[in-house]
Amino acid sequence: MINNILSDTIVAISTPKGVGGIAVIRISGSEAISIVNSSWKGVNLENAESHTAHLGYILDSGNQVIDQVVATIYKAPKSFTGENVVEIACHGSSWIQKELINEFARRGARPATRGEFSQRAFINGKMDLAEIEAVADLIASSSRAAHKIAISQMRGDFSNKLSELRQQLLNFVSLIELELDFSEEEVEFADRQQLTNLANDVRTIVNNLANSFSIGSSIKDGIPVAIAGVTNVGKSTLLNRLLHEEKAIVSDVHGTTRDFVEDTMEINGILFRFIDTAGLRETSDIVENIGIQRAEKKIKDAALLLWIIDPSAELEPQIERLKNARQELTDEQRMIVIVNKKDVATIDLQQLSGFDVIEISAKTGEGIDILESKIAGIYENEADKHDIIITNARHYQALTKASETLDRVVDGLDMGLPGDLISQDIRECMHYLGEITGEISTDDLLGNIFANFCIGK
Amino acid sequence: MINNILSDTIVAISTPKGVGGIAVIRISGSEAISIVNSSWKGVNLENAESHTAHLGYILDSGNQVIDQVVATIYKAPKSFTGENVVEIACHGSSWIQKELINEFARRGARPATRGEFSQRAFINGKMDLAEIEAVADLIASSSRAAHKIAISQMRGDFSNKLSELRQQLLNFVSLIELELDFSEEEVEFADRQQLTNLANDVRTIVNNLANSFSIGSSIKDGIPVAIAGVTNVGKSTLLNRLLHEEKAIVSDVHGTTRDFVEDTMEINGILFRFIDTAGLRETSDIVENIGIQRAEKKIKDAALLLWIIDPSAELEPQIERLKNARQELTDEQRMIVIVNKKDVATIDLQQLSGFDVIEISAKTGEGIDILESKIAGIYENEADKHDIIITNARHYQALTKASETLDRVVDGLDMGLPGDLISQDIRECMHYLGEITGEISTDDLLGNIFANFCIGK
Repeated sequence: MINNILSDTIVAISTPKGVGGIAVIRISGSEAISIVNSSWKGVNLENAESHTAHLGYILDSGNQVIDQVVATIYKAPKSFTGENVVEIACHGSSWIQKELINEFARRGARPATRGEFSQRAFINGKMDLAEIEAVADLIASSSRAAHKIAISQMRGDFSNKLSELRQQLLNFVSLIELELDFSEEEVEFADRQQLTNLANDVRTIVNNLANSFSIGSSIKDGIPVAIAGVTNVGKSTLLNRLLHEEKAIVSDVHGTTRDFVEDTMEINGILFRFIDTAGLRETSDIVENIGIQRAEKKIKDAALLLWIIDPSAELEPQIERLKNARQELTDEQRMIVIVNKKDVATIDLQQLSGFDVIEISAKTGEGIDILESKIAGIYENEADKHDIIITNARHYQALTKASETLDRVVDGLDMGLPGDLISQDIRECMHYLGEITGEISTDDLLGNIFANFCIGK
Repeated sequence: MINNILSDTIVAISTPKGVGGIAVIRISGSEAISIVNSSWKGVNLENAESHTAHLGYILDSGNQVIDQVVATIYKAPKSFTGENVVEIACHGSSWIQKELINEFARRGARPATRGEFSQRAFINGKMDLAEIEAVADLIASSSRAAHKIAISQMRGDFSNKLSELRQQLLNFVSLIELELDFSEEEVEFADRQQLTNLANDVRTIVNNLANSFSIGSSIKDGIPVAIAGVTNVGKSTLLNRLLHEEKAIVSDVHGTTRDFVEDTMEINGILFRFIDTAGLRETSDIVENIGIQRAEKKIKDAALLLWIIDPSAELEPQIERLKNARQELTDEQRMIVIVNKKDVATIDLQQLSGFDVIEISAKTGEGIDILESKIAGIYENEADKHDIIITNARHYQALTKASETLDRVVDGLDMGLPGDLISQDIRECMHYLGEITGEISTDDLLGNIFANFCIGK
């Protein structure tokens, strides 16, 4: 299915929708240049060299000018898709964009489906799947950190690492399979201990990659930060302050916040997803109680808890709840205790010894910049701990499966299982790693991936 | 003011806002190529030939990759602005677009103001004002007819005509002024009758151009079509039918429509602006009465009236109102009488003899296609009556002023006024025509024109 679509030439608008100074229409396929040339008034594009730009007019079938454009020619295989490609920079009216697409369609180009240009780049070996998925991430990235990961993946850092691992596994399996060929002679080509070491090494790398998904997906979607505390300590005021806008409704009434109000904000290049939770208290209000249950769930899922203390209210119960919350924290969760309302009250910070404490006033904004640096500081170096970070759930699943097969390999070697069983597990592991880059792929897999792309990509 | 800004290099995003497969950033100015090259990883762009495209990376000041891009080089004067231009096709994430602009700004490019690229194209003599304004119209055009006019203007048809007229006036004024030099000898170089004929010819052309503004602005903004008639004849139902959507609230209650509901729809390549008016009737409802007064105003301003008759209601008063409406029509206004509700009732069409009548059912859609053809038919050939159509109010005003000075020239010749007075009027006329293309311009005028452009254009 994938291969036989390659014979035709496809066309789509590649720039964002809407009206602008210019828009770009991309045509790819063996007929790309001749289709454009047939509606072209200007130098003969069929004779143009690759990577050259030409000013001219696109005419409709009645020889009326649709637009004056610049056509840039890319000749196969030196193009994004690996096919002949023409990029038409036209004036950015919706009408012109539509008419140009129609005109090229009349002359034999087919409107592209989602991700079809990328799909052709993949099929023609210009990029592997992981690199192509990185391009999609790159386009969606909205913070410096997310962008950095996507760029690294797009440039092939992850793919190269995978190919290295596959090569190691291939050497491994070759040794074992060589042994099998000579099995009657009871020769041991591969030192079992060495094999175990190799399997352990590969497993460590695979596990590290899989583990980076947690920070990777957080960086991509925003690190979840829950703002918690008892009612009326100023959680919504802090959220608004952190988001630099009036997102949450603020009032003096206890229990104002019931739903979750959340939004993302970039601090020092890292995207955070701040979540205002309902204030924790005993209440008979059913809606508020549902809110509190959800707040507890959000607190569980957060990477960072901002726990707010109101120094003007009774401290005992607040500190008790805080201590309970600390006990619930997982190893990976972090917490900052915020003593709010610095403008109206203070407390002896000794009472909070053992906690990471900061005094602020969400209302006046005092201390917010220090809080922001503190929040960003926790995660700034987090990403640097990993050589390569993965952000894609598909990659994570494949790595997890690869890791499971490596467990079986290590156990098998340990138990002295016969080489053919071990070899089978290694080959399965290679299969999972190959799925990530698309060396191993099925039409279903490809269809799923490209269906999530935008048209014109 | 205009000239001393040309020494620096400007940068802006030229594609529509938002996220897409690719976005294009344009940099123009003497330093354009060196600024990009200073952040570039790839072949040396300073040595690149004009009109060539190059794949490479843009790095930030810390040598981190911002994006993999294609940079297309245009060398002065062979570029849109007439200066060195680099167009960077990057991945279409908002973050990358922002970062690239910031990076080029750090390296010495200044973010462009609205229309600044076009302004430079004008100053460097690449396009005249009328052509540049046509580009803005082209980008905004949303119908085949509007697009055709903008393309013709962008290609210089209007500018050429103006330059022809100015040349004729220049010859004219030369003859008269030559006469003045030899005035003591009482020589008449110019035959007065010939001069009068020439002035009349030029005035006719100028008036034709000015008159085309009426149809031109209608085509650009949509030809105003008012849907009128007494209450409850189905005006809103017809509007919805013509717009192919549920725009107006429809009910059986007389006087449902009080505000104007209007929207545009393209029929056969022509944009129409359909306006649903309040039903005309005597009423004591104040809001409805205001609506009716406004309806009468809208009817006055419409190019075409669709007057609806309800065959199931009492005919006499409807026909009386229709006849009154006909008397109010100007020479240029057209009217189609629509006998609606064909699905429930019919009338003897003899009663409407002398009117252009069509029977439809807005409810079932019967006859709507014929009505649409009829509406489009009236205006389809209208545009073809004019060689050149103007659409810009500024051009219209300049032409009107030019026409007035030509009136004075013709009268002056007629009254035998001295040559120096006539010469002055002709030069004034040339001034107005020169304002259109920008041969005569002031900073204020230019500032006004370019301020309405988008950034990156």
